[in-house]
Amino acid sequence: MDFVSHVNKTSHDRGTCLCIGIDPHQKKLDEIEGLDKRSMLLDFGRKIVDHTREFVCAYKINIAFFEVHGAKGIEQLIELISYIKKSGTPLILDCKRGDIGSTAEAYAKACFEVYKADAVTLSPYMGWDSVKPFADYKGNFSFILALTSNEGANDFQLSGGLYRKVAKKVIEWDKENLGLVIGATKPGYLRKIRKSLGFNGLILVPGIGVQGGDLNKVMEYGINNNGKGLIISISRSIIFASMARKFYEAAAKKAFEYRAKMNI
Amino acid sequence: MDFVSHVNKTSHDRGTCLCIGIDPHQKKLDEIEGLDKRSMLLDFGRKIVDHTREFVCAYKINIAFFEVHGAKGIEQLIELISYIKKSGTPLILDCKRGDIGSTAEAYAKACFEVYKADAVTLSPYMGWDSVKPFADYKGNFSFILALTSNEGANDFQLSGGLYRKVAKKVIEWDKENLGLVIGATKPGYLRKIRKSLGFNGLILVPGIGVQGGDLNKVMEYGINNNGKGLIISISRSIIFASMARKFYEAAAKKAFEYRAKMNI
Repeated sequence: MDFVSHVNKTSHDRGTCLCIGIDPHQKKLDEIEGLDKRSMLLDFGRKIVDHTREFVCAYKINIAFFEVHGAKGIEQLIELISYIKKSGTPLILDCKRGDIGSTAEAYAKACFEVYKADAVTLSPYMGWDSVKPFADYKGNFSFILALTSNEGANDFQLSGGLYRKVAKKVIEWDKENLGLVIGATKPGYLRKIRKSLGFNGLILVPGIGVQGGDLNKVMEYGINNNGKGLIISISRSIIFASMARKFYEAAAKKAFEYRAKMNI
Repeated sequence: MDFVSHVNKTSHDRGTCLCIGIDPHQKKLDEIEGLDKRSMLLDFGRKIVDHTREFVCAYKINIAFFEVHGAKGIEQLIELISYIKKSGTPLILDCKRGDIGSTAEAYAKACFEVYKADAVTLSPYMGWDSVKPFADYKGNFSFILALTSNEGANDFQLSGGLYRKVAKKVIEWDKENLGLVIGATKPGYLRKIRKSLGFNGLILVPGIGVQGGDLNKVMEYGINNNGKGLIISISRSIIFASMARKFYEAAAKKAFEYRAKMNI
Protein backbone atom coordinates (compact mmCIF):
# COMPACT_ATOMS: atom_id res chain seq x y z
CA MET A 1 0.00 0.00 0.00
CA ASP A 2 1.41 3.44 -0.86
CA PHE A 3 1.87 6.07 1.85
CA VAL A 4 -1.20 8.17 0.98
CA SER A 5 -3.54 5.16 0.97
CA HIS A 6 -2.03 3.97 4.22
CA VAL A 7 -2.51 7.33 5.94
CA ASN A 8 -6.07 7.57 4.61
CA LYS A 9 -6.73 4.14 6.08
CA THR A 10 -5.25 4.81 9.53
CA SER A 11 -6.94 8.24 9.63
CA HIS A 12 -10.28 6.60 8.85
CA ASP A 13 -9.88 3.53 11.05
CA ARG A 14 -8.59 5.44 14.07
CA GLY A 15 -10.71 8.54 13.46
CA THR A 16 -7.92 11.08 13.60
CA CYS A 17 -5.27 13.02 11.71
CA LEU A 18 -3.05 13.16 14.81
CA CYS A 19 0.59 12.27 14.25
CA ILE A 20 2.88 11.92 17.26
CA GLY A 21 6.38 13.27 16.85
CA ILE A 22 8.82 10.98 18.65
CA ASP A 23 11.69 13.34 19.47
CA PRO A 24 13.70 11.71 22.25
CA HIS A 25 15.82 14.57 23.61
CA GLN A 26 18.49 12.93 25.71
CA LYS A 27 18.15 15.49 28.52
CA LYS A 28 14.47 14.71 28.84
CA LEU A 29 15.03 10.95 28.78
CA ASP A 30 17.56 11.33 31.59
CA GLU A 31 14.74 12.65 33.80
CA ILE A 32 12.68 9.49 33.36
CA GLU A 33 13.43 6.55 35.63
CA GLY A 34 13.20 2.96 34.52
CA LEU A 35 14.25 3.27 30.85
CA ASP A 36 16.66 0.63 29.54
CA LYS A 37 20.02 2.42 29.76
CA ARG A 38 21.55 0.46 26.86
CA SER A 39 18.92 1.58 24.36
CA MET A 40 16.99 4.45 25.87
CA LEU A 41 15.80 5.92 22.56
CA LEU A 42 14.34 2.62 21.45
CA ASP A 43 12.84 1.77 24.83
CA PHE A 44 11.24 5.22 25.10
CA GLY A 45 9.94 5.08 21.53
CA ARG A 46 8.46 1.60 21.92
CA LYS A 47 6.63 2.57 25.09
CA ILE A 48 5.13 5.60 23.37
CA VAL A 49 4.05 3.44 20.43
CA ASP A 50 2.60 0.68 22.66
CA HIS A 51 0.36 3.16 24.46
CA THR A 52 -0.64 5.57 21.70
CA ARG A 53 -0.88 3.65 18.42
CA GLU A 54 -4.66 3.46 18.40
CA PHE A 55 -4.85 7.26 18.62
CA VAL A 56 -2.66 8.24 15.66
CA CYS A 57 -2.71 8.13 11.87
CA ALA A 58 1.12 8.25 11.70
CA TYR A 59 4.29 8.71 13.70
CA LYS A 60 7.06 11.17 12.89
CA ILE A 61 10.63 10.67 14.07
CA ASN A 62 13.22 13.40 14.00
CA ILE A 63 16.49 11.74 13.05
CA ALA A 64 18.66 14.42 14.74
CA PHE A 65 17.97 12.91 18.17
CA PHE A 66 19.32 9.59 16.92
CA GLU A 67 22.28 10.98 14.95
CA VAL A 68 23.54 12.63 18.11
CA HIS A 69 24.20 9.13 19.51
CA GLY A 70 26.34 8.08 16.54
CA ALA A 71 26.18 4.51 15.22
CA LYS A 72 24.24 3.30 18.28
CA GLY A 73 21.60 5.93 17.61
CA ILE A 74 21.19 4.75 14.03
CA GLU A 75 20.82 1.12 15.16
CA GLN A 76 18.03 2.17 17.51
CA LEU A 77 16.41 4.30 14.82
CA ILE A 78 16.22 1.34 12.45
CA GLU A 79 14.79 -0.90 15.16
CA LEU A 80 12.23 1.68 16.22
CA ILE A 81 11.06 2.27 12.65
CA SER A 82 10.66 -1.47 12.18
CA TYR A 83 8.64 -1.63 15.43
CA ILE A 84 6.38 1.23 14.34
CA LYS A 85 5.73 -0.35 10.97
CA LYS A 86 4.78 -3.65 12.63
CA SER A 87 2.17 -1.66 14.58
CA GLY A 88 0.51 -0.94 11.24
CA THR A 89 1.26 2.78 11.45
CA PRO A 90 2.98 4.82 8.69
CA LEU A 91 6.28 6.46 9.66
CA ILE A 92 7.52 9.88 8.56
CA LEU A 93 11.24 10.45 9.00
CA ASP A 94 11.76 14.14 9.68
CA CYS A 95 15.24 14.64 8.22
CA LYS A 96 14.91 17.77 6.02
CA ARG A 97 17.50 16.49 3.59
CA GLY A 98 18.39 18.48 0.48
CA ASP A 99 21.23 17.64 -1.91
CA ILE A 100 21.63 16.73 -5.57
CA GLY A 101 22.70 14.02 -8.00
CA SER A 102 24.24 10.86 -6.61
CA THR A 103 24.28 12.42 -3.12
CA ALA A 104 20.51 12.86 -3.17
CA GLU A 105 20.18 9.29 -4.45
CA ALA A 106 22.26 8.09 -1.49
CA TYR A 107 20.08 10.04 0.95
CA ALA A 108 16.90 8.66 -0.61
CA LYS A 109 18.27 5.13 -0.43
CA ALA A 110 19.32 5.66 3.20
CA CYS A 111 15.86 6.94 4.17
CA PHE A 112 13.68 4.49 2.24
CA GLU A 113 15.82 1.35 2.00
CA VAL A 114 18.14 1.43 5.02
CA TYR A 115 16.10 3.20 7.70
CA LYS A 116 12.94 2.03 5.86
CA ALA A 117 10.87 5.15 6.49
CA ASP A 118 7.57 5.43 4.61
CA ALA A 119 7.92 9.18 4.13
CA VAL A 120 10.43 11.98 4.67
CA THR A 121 10.62 15.75 4.97
CA LEU A 122 12.84 17.61 2.47
CA SER A 123 14.29 21.09 2.17
CA PRO A 124 13.52 22.64 -1.25
CA TYR A 125 16.47 25.05 -1.39
CA MET A 126 18.37 23.23 -4.17
CA GLY A 127 15.29 22.73 -6.35
CA TRP A 128 13.90 19.85 -8.38
CA ASP A 129 17.11 17.80 -8.68
CA SER A 130 17.16 17.53 -4.88
CA VAL A 131 13.57 16.25 -4.80
CA LYS A 132 13.46 13.92 -7.82
CA PRO A 133 15.52 11.02 -6.37
CA PHE A 134 13.02 10.85 -3.50
CA ALA A 135 9.97 11.23 -5.75
CA ASP A 136 11.28 8.30 -7.82
CA TYR A 137 10.35 6.00 -4.92
CA LYS A 138 6.73 5.70 -6.00
CA GLY A 139 5.28 4.03 -2.89
CA ASN A 140 7.03 6.45 -0.56
CA PHE A 141 6.21 10.08 0.10
CA SER A 142 8.08 13.36 0.58
CA PHE A 143 6.86 16.46 2.40
CA ILE A 144 8.58 19.59 1.08
CA LEU A 145 9.20 22.41 3.57
CA ALA A 146 7.16 25.43 2.50
CA LEU A 147 6.34 27.53 5.56
CA THR A 148 7.64 26.58 8.99
CA SER A 149 6.41 27.64 12.42
CA ASN A 150 9.61 29.28 13.69
CA GLU A 151 10.68 32.92 13.97
CA GLY A 152 13.32 32.43 11.25
CA ALA A 153 10.58 31.71 8.71
CA ASN A 154 10.56 35.49 8.25
CA ASP A 155 14.17 35.50 7.03
CA PHE A 156 13.52 33.82 3.68
CA GLN A 157 10.25 31.91 3.45
CA LEU A 158 8.05 34.98 3.91
CA SER A 159 10.36 37.23 1.92
CA GLY A 160 9.30 37.62 -1.70
CA GLY A 161 6.68 34.91 -1.30
CA LEU A 162 9.23 32.09 -1.29
CA TYR A 163 6.83 29.70 0.47
CA ARG A 164 4.30 30.35 -2.34
CA LYS A 165 6.91 29.64 -5.00
CA VAL A 166 7.71 26.36 -3.30
CA ALA A 167 4.04 25.39 -3.11
CA LYS A 168 3.55 26.36 -6.77
CA LYS A 169 6.55 24.29 -7.84
CA VAL A 170 5.26 21.28 -5.95
CA ILE A 171 1.94 21.68 -7.78
CA GLU A 172 3.81 22.08 -11.10
CA TRP A 173 5.98 18.99 -10.48
CA ASP A 174 2.64 17.19 -10.27
CA LYS A 175 3.67 14.07 -8.38
CA GLU A 176 1.19 12.13 -6.28
CA ASN A 177 3.88 11.40 -3.71
CA LEU A 178 4.85 14.99 -2.90
CA GLY A 179 3.23 17.09 -0.18
CA LEU A 180 4.00 20.19 1.87
CA VAL A 181 5.01 21.17 5.39
CA ILE A 182 3.09 24.21 6.68
CA GLY A 183 3.50 25.29 10.31
CA ALA A 184 0.43 25.46 12.54
CA THR A 185 1.33 28.92 13.84
CA LYS A 186 0.33 30.39 10.47
CA PRO A 187 -3.16 28.98 9.70
CA GLY A 188 -4.00 31.91 7.40
CA TYR A 189 -1.29 30.78 5.02
CA LEU A 190 -2.70 27.26 5.17
CA ARG A 191 -5.92 28.66 3.76
CA LYS A 192 -4.03 30.48 1.00
CA ILE A 193 -2.26 27.29 -0.01
CA ARG A 194 -5.57 25.42 -0.20
CA LYS A 195 -7.83 28.13 -1.62
CA SER A 196 -5.70 30.54 -3.68
CA LEU A 197 -3.17 28.03 -4.97
CA GLY A 198 -5.54 25.08 -5.01
CA PHE A 199 -3.09 22.60 -3.56
CA ASN A 200 -5.07 19.44 -2.87
CA GLY A 201 -2.35 17.06 -1.67
CA LEU A 202 -1.16 16.00 1.77
CA ILE A 203 0.00 18.68 4.20
CA LEU A 204 2.02 17.92 7.31
CA VAL A 205 1.40 20.50 10.03
CA PRO A 206 3.75 20.73 12.99
CA GLY A 207 3.55 23.46 15.64
CA ILE A 208 0.45 22.57 17.66
CA GLY A 209 1.08 22.17 21.39
CA VAL A 210 4.24 23.78 22.75
CA GLN A 211 4.57 26.09 19.75
CA GLY A 212 1.02 27.29 20.25
CA GLY A 213 -0.76 26.91 16.89
CA ASP A 214 -4.56 27.17 16.77
CA LEU A 215 -5.93 23.67 16.27
CA ASN A 216 -9.45 24.63 15.19
CA LYS A 217 -8.21 26.96 12.48
CA VAL A 218 -5.68 24.43 11.28
CA MET A 219 -8.46 21.83 10.98
CA GLU A 220 -10.79 24.25 9.20
CA TYR A 221 -8.24 25.66 6.74
CA GLY A 222 -6.07 22.61 6.31
CA ILE A 223 -8.37 19.91 4.96
CA ASN A 224 -8.59 19.49 1.21
CA ASN A 225 -11.58 19.18 -1.13
CA ASN A 226 -12.14 15.60 -0.04
CA GLY A 227 -12.14 16.44 3.65
CA LYS A 228 -8.75 14.77 3.96
CA GLY A 229 -5.12 15.61 3.22
CA LEU A 230 -4.06 16.70 6.67
CA ILE A 231 -1.57 15.26 9.16
CA ILE A 232 -1.11 17.27 12.35
CA SER A 233 2.03 16.49 14.27
CA ILE A 234 2.41 17.00 18.01
CA SER A 235 5.53 16.07 19.85
CA ARG A 236 6.64 17.37 23.25
CA SER A 237 3.22 18.13 24.73
CA ILE A 238 2.32 14.46 24.28
CA ILE A 239 5.53 12.46 24.68
CA PHE A 240 6.79 14.54 27.61
CA ALA A 241 3.38 15.16 29.21
CA SER A 242 4.84 13.48 32.28
CA MET A 243 8.38 12.68 33.40
CA ALA A 244 7.21 9.91 35.73
CA ARG A 245 8.26 6.29 35.37
CA LYS A 246 4.91 5.64 33.68
CA PHE A 247 5.26 8.65 31.35
CA TYR A 248 3.47 6.67 28.65
CA GLU A 249 0.19 6.74 30.56
CA ALA A 250 0.15 10.54 30.53
CA ALA A 251 1.19 10.46 26.86
CA ALA A 252 -1.68 8.09 26.07
CA LYS A 253 -4.14 10.34 27.90
CA LYS A 254 -2.96 13.41 25.97
CA ALA A 255 -3.02 11.54 22.67
CA PHE A 256 -6.54 10.30 23.42
CA GLU A 257 -7.69 13.89 24.04
CA TYR A 258 -6.06 15.27 20.90
CA ARG A 259 -7.30 12.39 18.79
CA ALA A 260 -10.94 13.32 19.39
CA LYS A 261 -10.28 16.94 18.41
CA MET A 262 -8.69 15.81 15.15
CA ASN A 263 -11.37 13.61 13.68
CA ILE A 264 -11.42 14.24 9.92
CA MET B 1 43.11 26.71 16.49
CA ASP B 2 39.79 27.81 14.98
CA PHE B 3 38.73 26.60 11.53
CA VAL B 4 39.57 29.81 9.63
CA SER B 5 43.07 30.03 11.10
CA HIS B 6 43.60 26.36 10.39
CA VAL B 7 42.54 26.68 6.73
CA ASN B 8 44.68 29.80 6.31
CA LYS B 9 47.62 27.82 7.67
CA THR B 10 47.16 24.73 5.48
CA SER B 11 46.47 26.95 2.43
CA HIS B 12 49.70 28.83 3.10
CA ASP B 13 51.86 25.84 4.06
CA ARG B 14 50.70 23.64 1.17
CA GLY B 15 50.31 26.48 -1.31
CA THR B 16 46.78 25.74 -2.40
CA CYS B 17 43.07 26.29 -1.82
CA LEU B 18 42.25 22.83 -3.17
CA CYS B 19 39.84 20.78 -1.08
CA ILE B 20 39.23 17.16 -2.02
CA GLY B 21 35.67 15.92 -1.68
CA ILE B 22 35.69 12.34 -0.42
CA ASP B 23 32.41 11.00 -1.77
CA PRO B 24 32.68 7.21 -1.71
CA HIS B 25 29.83 6.11 -4.00
CA GLN B 26 29.39 2.41 -3.32
CA LYS B 27 29.01 1.56 -7.02
CA LYS B 28 32.35 3.17 -7.76
CA LEU B 29 34.10 1.45 -4.86
CA ASP B 30 32.81 -1.88 -6.13
CA GLU B 31 34.85 -1.35 -9.31
CA ILE B 32 38.11 -1.02 -7.37
CA GLU B 33 39.94 -4.22 -6.46
CA GLY B 34 41.85 -4.64 -3.24
CA LEU B 35 39.75 -2.51 -0.86
CA ASP B 36 39.08 -3.97 2.58
CA LYS B 37 35.55 -5.38 2.19
CA ARG B 38 34.68 -4.96 5.88
CA SER B 39 35.25 -1.21 5.83
CA MET B 40 35.50 -0.08 2.24
CA LEU B 41 34.54 3.54 2.88
CA LEU B 42 37.23 3.94 5.51
CA ASP B 43 39.88 2.06 3.56
CA PHE B 44 39.17 4.11 0.42
CA GLY B 45 39.17 7.37 2.35
CA ARG B 46 42.41 6.63 4.18
CA LYS B 47 44.20 5.78 0.94
CA ILE B 48 43.03 9.05 -0.61
CA VAL B 49 44.23 10.96 2.45
CA ASP B 50 47.59 9.15 2.61
CA HIS B 51 48.40 10.10 -0.97
CA THR B 52 46.92 13.58 -1.28
CA ARG B 53 47.22 15.33 2.08
CA GLU B 54 50.17 17.50 1.07
CA PHE B 55 48.18 18.89 -1.87
CA VAL B 56 45.07 20.12 -0.04
CA CYS B 57 44.03 22.83 2.39
CA ALA B 58 41.02 20.79 3.55
CA TYR B 59 38.93 17.68 2.94
CA LYS B 60 35.18 17.60 2.51
CA ILE B 61 33.13 14.49 3.21
CA ASN B 62 29.57 14.06 2.07
CA ILE B 63 27.76 12.21 4.84
CA ALA B 64 25.10 10.75 2.53
CA PHE B 65 27.53 8.10 1.26
CA PHE B 66 28.06 6.97 4.84
CA GLU B 67 24.42 7.18 5.96
CA VAL B 68 23.46 4.81 3.19
CA HIS B 69 25.42 2.08 5.04
CA GLY B 70 23.51 2.58 8.29
CA ALA B 71 25.30 2.28 11.64
CA LYS B 72 28.40 0.74 10.02
CA GLY B 73 28.68 3.74 7.74
CA ILE B 74 28.57 6.11 10.70
CA GLU B 75 31.30 4.14 12.48
CA GLN B 76 33.52 4.46 9.42
CA LEU B 77 32.69 8.16 9.07
CA ILE B 78 33.83 8.85 12.63
CA GLU B 79 37.04 6.86 12.12
CA LEU B 80 37.79 8.57 8.82
CA ILE B 81 37.26 12.05 10.27
CA SER B 82 39.59 11.19 13.14
CA TYR B 83 42.18 9.96 10.62
CA ILE B 84 41.91 13.14 8.55
CA LYS B 85 42.30 15.36 11.61
CA LYS B 86 45.43 13.44 12.65
CA SER B 87 46.84 14.32 9.21
CA GLY B 88 46.65 17.97 10.28
CA THR B 89 43.99 18.79 7.72
CA PRO B 90 40.67 20.54 8.48
CA LEU B 91 37.53 18.58 7.68
CA ILE B 92 34.27 19.94 6.29
CA LEU B 93 31.24 17.69 6.73
CA ASP B 94 28.92 18.31 3.80
CA CYS B 95 25.57 17.53 5.40
CA LYS B 96 23.34 20.50 4.43
CA ARG B 97 21.37 20.24 7.66
CA GLY B 98 18.63 22.73 8.46
CA ASP B 99 16.25 22.47 11.40
CA ILE B 100 15.36 24.54 14.47
CA GLY B 101 15.41 24.63 18.26
CA SER B 102 16.47 21.53 20.14
CA THR B 103 16.60 19.60 16.85
CA ALA B 104 19.19 21.98 15.41
CA GLU B 105 21.12 21.72 18.68
CA ALA B 106 21.13 17.94 18.34
CA TYR B 107 22.39 18.18 14.73
CA ALA B 108 25.13 20.63 15.74
CA LYS B 109 26.19 18.36 18.58
CA ALA B 110 26.21 15.35 16.25
CA CYS B 111 28.35 17.15 13.67
CA PHE B 112 30.84 18.86 15.98
CA GLU B 113 30.98 16.59 19.04
CA VAL B 114 30.08 13.11 17.79
CA TYR B 115 31.42 13.03 14.23
CA LYS B 116 33.91 15.73 15.26
CA ALA B 117 33.86 17.69 12.00
CA ASP B 118 35.62 21.07 11.98
CA ALA B 119 33.04 22.64 9.68
CA VAL B 120 29.67 21.86 8.09
CA THR B 121 27.43 22.97 5.25
CA LEU B 122 23.92 24.19 6.15
CA SER B 123 20.71 24.89 4.27
CA PRO B 124 19.37 28.39 5.06
CA TYR B 125 15.69 27.69 4.30
CA MET B 126 14.48 27.89 7.93
CA GLY B 127 16.43 31.06 8.74
CA TRP B 128 18.54 32.23 11.64
CA ASP B 129 17.22 29.82 14.27
CA SER B 130 18.48 26.94 12.11
CA VAL B 131 21.98 28.48 11.91
CA LYS B 132 22.48 29.81 15.43
CA PRO B 133 23.04 26.48 17.23
CA PHE B 134 25.92 25.80 14.80
CA ALA B 135 27.32 29.33 15.03
CA ASP B 136 27.39 28.94 18.81
CA TYR B 137 30.32 26.53 18.38
CA LYS B 138 32.91 29.30 18.18
CA GLY B 139 35.91 27.27 16.98
CA ASN B 140 33.87 25.49 14.32
CA PHE B 141 32.58 26.88 11.05
CA SER B 142 29.41 26.69 8.95
CA PHE B 143 29.09 27.28 5.21
CA ILE B 144 25.57 28.42 4.31
CA LEU B 145 24.20 27.33 0.91
CA ALA B 146 23.68 30.44 -1.23
CA LEU B 147 24.00 29.51 -4.89
CA THR B 148 24.60 25.93 -5.95
CA SER B 149 25.97 24.59 -9.22
CA ASN B 150 22.98 22.45 -10.24
CA GLU B 151 20.13 22.99 -12.69
CA GLY B 152 17.60 23.24 -9.85
CA ALA B 153 19.34 26.39 -8.56
CA ASN B 154 17.01 28.16 -11.01
CA ASP B 155 13.92 26.94 -9.16
CA PHE B 156 14.35 29.10 -6.06
CA GLN B 157 17.88 30.45 -5.53
CA LEU B 158 17.88 32.54 -8.69
CA SER B 159 14.22 33.49 -8.36
CA GLY B 160 13.70 36.87 -6.71
CA GLY B 161 17.38 37.08 -5.80
CA LEU B 162 17.11 34.52 -3.01
CA TYR B 163 20.84 33.73 -3.11
CA ARG B 164 21.53 37.47 -2.59
CA LYS B 165 19.16 37.60 0.36
CA VAL B 166 20.97 34.66 1.92
CA ALA B 167 24.37 36.28 1.39
CA LYS B 168 23.07 39.56 2.83
CA LYS B 169 21.68 37.81 5.89
CA VAL B 170 24.98 36.03 6.49
CA ILE B 171 26.70 39.44 6.35
CA GLU B 172 24.04 40.89 8.68
CA TRP B 173 24.39 38.01 11.17
CA ASP B 174 28.03 39.09 11.34
CA LYS B 175 29.64 35.96 12.72
CA GLU B 176 33.25 35.15 12.04
CA ASN B 177 32.44 31.47 11.78
CA LEU B 178 29.86 31.69 8.98
CA GLY B 179 30.68 31.47 5.28
CA LEU B 180 28.92 30.73 2.00
CA VAL B 181 28.66 27.99 -0.60
CA ILE B 182 28.73 29.33 -4.18
CA GLY B 183 28.89 26.89 -7.09
CA ALA B 184 31.80 27.14 -9.56
CA THR B 185 29.50 26.99 -12.57
CA LYS B 186 28.39 30.56 -11.83
CA PRO B 187 31.61 32.61 -11.39
CA GLY B 188 29.87 35.87 -12.32
CA TYR B 189 27.75 35.56 -9.20
CA LEU B 190 30.88 34.94 -7.18
CA ARG B 191 32.09 38.36 -8.28
CA LYS B 192 28.76 39.94 -7.30
CA ILE B 193 28.97 38.42 -3.84
CA ARG B 194 32.51 39.77 -3.36
CA LYS B 195 32.22 43.15 -5.10
CA SER B 196 28.60 44.32 -4.91
CA LEU B 197 27.73 42.80 -1.55
CA GLY B 198 31.21 43.10 -0.11
CA PHE B 199 31.25 39.68 1.51
CA ASN B 200 34.79 39.11 2.74
CA GLY B 201 34.48 35.77 4.55
CA LEU B 202 35.22 32.19 3.52
CA ILE B 203 33.53 30.80 0.42
CA LEU B 204 33.37 27.11 -0.38
CA VAL B 205 33.17 26.50 -4.12
CA PRO B 206 32.15 23.08 -5.43
CA GLY B 207 31.55 22.33 -9.10
CA ILE B 208 35.02 22.35 -10.66
CA GLY B 209 35.91 19.14 -12.48
CA VAL B 210 33.01 16.93 -13.56
CA GLN B 211 30.49 19.78 -13.22
CA GLY B 212 32.62 21.96 -15.48
CA GLY B 213 33.17 25.26 -13.65
CA ASP B 214 35.87 27.64 -14.94
CA LEU B 215 38.78 27.46 -12.51
CA ASN B 216 40.57 30.64 -13.58
CA LYS B 217 37.45 32.76 -13.20
CA VAL B 218 36.64 31.18 -9.87
CA MET B 219 40.15 32.02 -8.65
CA GLU B 220 39.97 35.58 -9.97
CA TYR B 221 36.50 36.42 -8.69
CA GLY B 222 36.49 34.29 -5.57
CA ILE B 223 39.37 35.56 -3.46
CA ASN B 224 38.65 38.25 -0.90
CA ASN B 225 40.38 41.56 -0.11
CA ASN B 226 43.21 39.74 1.63
CA GLY B 227 43.85 37.39 -1.29
CA LYS B 228 42.33 34.57 0.73
CA GLY B 229 38.89 33.32 1.68
CA LEU B 230 38.49 30.62 -0.93
CA ILE B 231 38.20 26.84 -0.71
CA ILE B 232 37.65 25.04 -4.01
CA SER B 233 36.31 21.53 -3.69
CA ILE B 234 36.85 18.83 -6.29
CA SER B 235 35.59 15.33 -5.83
CA ARG B 236 35.04 12.74 -8.55
CA SER B 237 37.63 13.95 -11.06
CA ILE B 238 40.31 13.40 -8.41
CA ILE B 239 39.16 10.49 -6.26
CA PHE B 240 37.88 8.45 -9.20
CA ALA B 241 40.59 9.50 -11.70
CA SER B 242 41.38 5.80 -11.97
CA MET B 243 39.50 2.64 -11.01
CA ALA B 244 42.70 0.59 -10.81
CA ARG B 245 43.91 -1.15 -7.66
CA LYS B 246 46.30 1.77 -7.16
CA PHE B 247 43.57 4.39 -7.76
CA TYR B 248 45.27 6.61 -5.19
CA GLU B 249 48.29 7.18 -7.42
CA ALA B 250 46.11 8.68 -10.16
CA ALA B 251 44.26 10.66 -7.48
CA ALA B 252 47.56 12.01 -6.14
CA LYS B 253 48.68 12.98 -9.66
CA LYS B 254 45.40 14.85 -10.30
CA ALA B 255 45.54 16.54 -6.91
CA PHE B 256 49.15 17.57 -7.54
CA GLU B 257 48.11 19.16 -10.86
CA TYR B 258 45.13 21.00 -9.39
CA ARG B 259 47.12 22.15 -6.38
CA ALA B 260 49.51 24.20 -8.52
CA LYS B 261 46.60 25.90 -10.32
CA MET B 262 45.08 26.86 -6.99
CA ASN B 263 47.92 28.64 -5.29
CA ILE B 264 46.48 31.61 -3.43
